Amino acid sequence: MSVSPLIQELIQALRYLPGVGPKSAQRMAFYLLQNDIKKTEHLANTIIRNLKHIRRCIQCRVLTETELCQICRNTKRAQTKICIVEGQMDTIVIEQTATFNGRYFVLHGQLSPIDGIGPEQIGIPLLLEQIKKNPVDEVILALSATIEGQTTSHYIASALRHLPINITRLAHGLPMGSELEYTDGHTLTHAFMDRKNFAFSD
Amino acid sequence: MSVSPLIQELIQALRYLPGVGPKSAQRMAFYLLQNDIKKTEHLANTIIRNLKHIRRCIQCRVLTETELCQICRNTKRAQTKICIVEGQMDTIVIEQTATFNGRYFVLHGQLSPIDGIGPEQIGIPLLLEQIKKNPVDEVILALSATIEGQTTSHYIASALRHLPINITRLAHGLPMGSELEYTDGHTLTHAFMDRKNFAFSD
Repeated sequence: MSVSPLIQELIQALRYLPGVGPKSAQRMAFYLLQNDIKKTEHLANTIIRNLKHIRRCIQCRVLTETELCQICRNTKRAQTKICIVEGQMDTIVIEQTATFNGRYFVLHGQLSPIDGIGPEQIGIPLLLEQIKKNPVDEVILALSATIEGQTTSHYIASALRHLPINITRLAHGLPMGSELEYTDGHTLTHAFMDRKNFAFSD
Repeated sequence: MSVSPLIQELIQALRYLPGVGPKSAQRMAFYLLQNDIKKTEHLANTIIRNLKHIRRCIQCRVLTETELCQICRNTKRAQTKICIVEGQMDTIVIEQTATFNGRYFVLHGQLSPIDGIGPEQIGIPLLLEQIKKNPVDEVILALSATIEGQTTSHYIASALRHLPINITRLAHGLPMGSELEYTDGHTLTHAFMDRKNFAFSD
């Protein structure tokens, strides 16, 4: 059954959402059409209205509606530790662990010359300028353990090498709860290379 | 990390979409915020604009932008066979099988007195009126094999009982490809009750 053109257009538009394939888009379209039109309009209007007021924190590039985000404004957080992440979802998962009390810097991407994403696009000049003005003691590279993530980490580390900063990266190794038998060779290699002295308190 | 209020509001609004939990809504919100604002506005505008022009086919209640839907206008389809379904997604899956050449009647729900959904809400008076004006030979009840679906089927069948119409329902039985060992007892009972003479051509 070919659905009517306007419904088809709506389905197509919904596919722009991440993780929404043809089947889910169809389901969403009919759901929107069959349910309360006021709630649907609220959804569409919220998208348009809120998007206009949300921009990047001028310091860490987190998306927010204020000039400086909540974390950058929080004087209880160490301003001398910067955790560099690829996306804003990463800041959320790190915050949930409650193990980091510094501030963030969000790249909103990875270096990808082939897609025209160079250091400027991911905010590296802004980061360097900030560190020059307000020196920090540690920069933690919390990027993906993928080729692209590692290339980006490498670029940033090189750019900071001449400064008196402790540059760290997250550990690579066995995910908690995993069994050795089912761990891929690449992870196992890194787990061996990064092995640490056994501590009885761990 | 508590995200900023406007982002929180956007996440909340996205959760209205079916199958979108807190995690996916968060992912969608940041995706919309980090990507092309024009495409996002297109999505929101399409939802608002298209919803205004889509209504129910006056005959079969399929959602469409024309008074009569494509299937009801199609003179090559048997107008004397009506397949009754709960939702529009059902018409799409049935059309994909290419086994039915009649027309549909979409309830957009199931009877549910506790939620205030009675016969009027699912279009039963409209269906009866149509059948009175243009008699049909068969009404196929293609509703869910759930208590609610079966209650609704039963109600419709009763309402049509006094008319010279062949009232049928979809077969219940083993899903194709399933193994007896893993089939639930309820399905197996129905498969036994609905057993058919073995045909060598099947």
